[in-house]
Amino acid sequence: MSEKSVLNFESSACPMPLPHKDRIVMSHGSGGSMTRDLIASIFNKYFSNPILNRGNDFADLQPPAGQKLVVSTDGHIVSPIFFPGGDIGRLAVSGTVNDIAMSGGKPAYLTASFILEEGFSTADLEKVAASMAAAAAEAGVLIIAGDTKVAEKGKADGIFISTTGIGFADAGLRIGGEFAQPGDAVLVSGSMGDHGIAVLAARNQLGFSTTIQSDVAPLNHLIGAALQAAPQIHVLRDPTRGGLATSLNEIACQSQVNILLEETAIPVKREVRAACEMLGFDPLYVANEGKVIVILPDSQAQAALAALRNHPLGIDSAIIGKVTQSSASPRVSMNTLIGGTRIVDMLTGEMLPRIC
Amino acid sequence: MSEKSVLNFESSACPMPLPHKDRIVMSHGSGGSMTRDLIASIFNKYFSNPILNRGNDFADLQPPAGQKLVVSTDGHIVSPIFFPGGDIGRLAVSGTVNDIAMSGGKPAYLTASFILEEGFSTADLEKVAASMAAAAAEAGVLIIAGDTKVAEKGKADGIFISTTGIGFADAGLRIGGEFAQPGDAVLVSGSMGDHGIAVLAARNQLGFSTTIQSDVAPLNHLIGAALQAAPQIHVLRDPTRGGLATSLNEIACQSQVNILLEETAIPVKREVRAACEMLGFDPLYVANEGKVIVILPDSQAQAALAALRNHPLGIDSAIIGKVTQSSASPRVSMNTLIGGTRIVDMLTGEMLPRIC
Repeated sequence: MSEKSVLNFESSACPMPLPHKDRIVMSHGSGGSMTRDLIASIFNKYFSNPILNRGNDFADLQPPAGQKLVVSTDGHIVSPIFFPGGDIGRLAVSGTVNDIAMSGGKPAYLTASFILEEGFSTADLEKVAASMAAAAAEAGVLIIAGDTKVAEKGKADGIFISTTGIGFADAGLRIGGEFAQPGDAVLVSGSMGDHGIAVLAARNQLGFSTTIQSDVAPLNHLIGAALQAAPQIHVLRDPTRGGLATSLNEIACQSQVNILLEETAIPVKREVRAACEMLGFDPLYVANEGKVIVILPDSQAQAALAALRNHPLGIDSAIIGKVTQSSASPRVSMNTLIGGTRIVDMLTGEMLPRIC
Repeated sequence: MSEKSVLNFESSACPMPLPHKDRIVMSHGSGGSMTRDLIASIFNKYFSNPILNRGNDFADLQPPAGQKLVVSTDGHIVSPIFFPGGDIGRLAVSGTVNDIAMSGGKPAYLTASFILEEGFSTADLEKVAASMAAAAAEAGVLIIAGDTKVAEKGKADGIFISTTGIGFADAGLRIGGEFAQPGDAVLVSGSMGDHGIAVLAARNQLGFSTTIQSDVAPLNHLIGAALQAAPQIHVLRDPTRGGLATSLNEIACQSQVNILLEETAIPVKREVRAACEMLGFDPLYVANEGKVIVILPDSQAQAALAALRNHPLGIDSAIIGKVTQSSASPRVSMNTLIGGTRIVDMLTGEMLPRIC
């Protein structure tokens, strides 16, 4: 990285950032001096690092030798963009960091593609960028490339952010939804449904007030601790859209196994349970943005549980069930509170739109 | 890649794709069975490859040893989504493939994040997916990860696609906007302004009919041919938003040099020139999506020119100017048709919104 390159947007000879406008205008997406102004006054201010600062349309970097590459992408359209416990920026960083962490690898870099609506507040854009920078620092990742487009007023909804994550993992690591085995224990790292209900509450759609906060957080350090304690983890998955029930059904199908849950063991906060009961929702289908499902040999379950509970993001971790058998008709079922057993299906239809 | 993993969405025991609806509905973005249906019936149908098909929220792959990683991201919101010579799918693949190719490296993988508007035609989504698959095949890249979100009707505009590209380059390769040197020749691979004018024409904003087609195309093979013939290339850049003038100003600032163009040498199609004259546009500021600026030592300029002209996407290539000197006040100027010299500034303000 040459010294000169870091001067990209700072050279006095090249256009200086203008005092930026209060609202996003179409020419912020033109690719000309207004776009450059937005980059200099907001994105470079918060995301600055030597790879990003080179100012090319590509970022280049040296991958660690002998590691495999892990890649994931996610679009974020949450509404409202600010909600109790987080915002679209923290969500866009955490969501993609977490998808990388679910491979067992270490997230290292993010790219961010912003689609802005004409008239969007630049003060809000700056708040979102600051929140992304804070979440990236918390996760220990760098934002190395970005893009901004602007759509006319009424053709988008404030701000959409698509992030792509790049991480690295030991080449021999085999963690994925297809590796669940009969006899494995199923853990979750905390209470279910907080994020979805918090976003719904922020939309004033509950009809009552609540103190529920979104759990949105980068989970890579929590997962690192679990892997250290229990290196034989087979599956890691964050139960986001569709909630715990949908994620477990996906895993059952990928691994061709049956999974049996214990309803009494699944942590759900009292306020979330109350909100769900009033609204007719099942917390097992409500999205989480700071929780992970861990599936691993029963012999390592206690070690993993202790490591998860020892981390601030995992204090309510619990063993919630087991993988019972291989199956050509994969199925998730649950021993219920009242003593019966019921099938837990994948989410069908729409539950909570625009929660991520 | 286990055999089983390829069966993700094909096992008869797991939900089969439903006959898909004519229009995108909110539950296509729910993360549940409707999302899965959309993935199976459209995305997996066109993008299928072993990395994507594992069905995890991350993709993992083995990078070539000793190479550096090149990464780029771009959001695409072009309106209309179908235009003469291309569509948003071909644009989303080509735009990001090209940003990677501008490093001199080889694009290898793409991720795609779709933001769909409720009510968008699934037939159009399928056309776009097919076009992405065709452009990816043309470029020789795989689409390895994706995401789909759905916003309520009126909160987006049909379809937005953010793509991120991953490529690999020799670790020692030094190509970038900061490497232009005094004495270098400046080439372009063909006529300027075709894409912007074609999109404008598709919006019926010209007030007259035209046969202009967008030049949108993946340029990696063209650039590979140029690099083979002229390995000392210093700068590669695709003059997209803001056009040739803006890209050259960016390069001048990054490299702290002055650039001098010859107006008569810059290829512009007669129809594009006519459209620009009627509309009061300057073709040097109109976007291209299938052209590259090449800056390299003058001694290799003829070899590069011959290689570019020998490729179907570069037949109208030309040497259009030179890097004159290092400068603390970087400037692009042009010897004009009528014998004067004028400053060629960066685009200020808005020119053609939603052209990419």
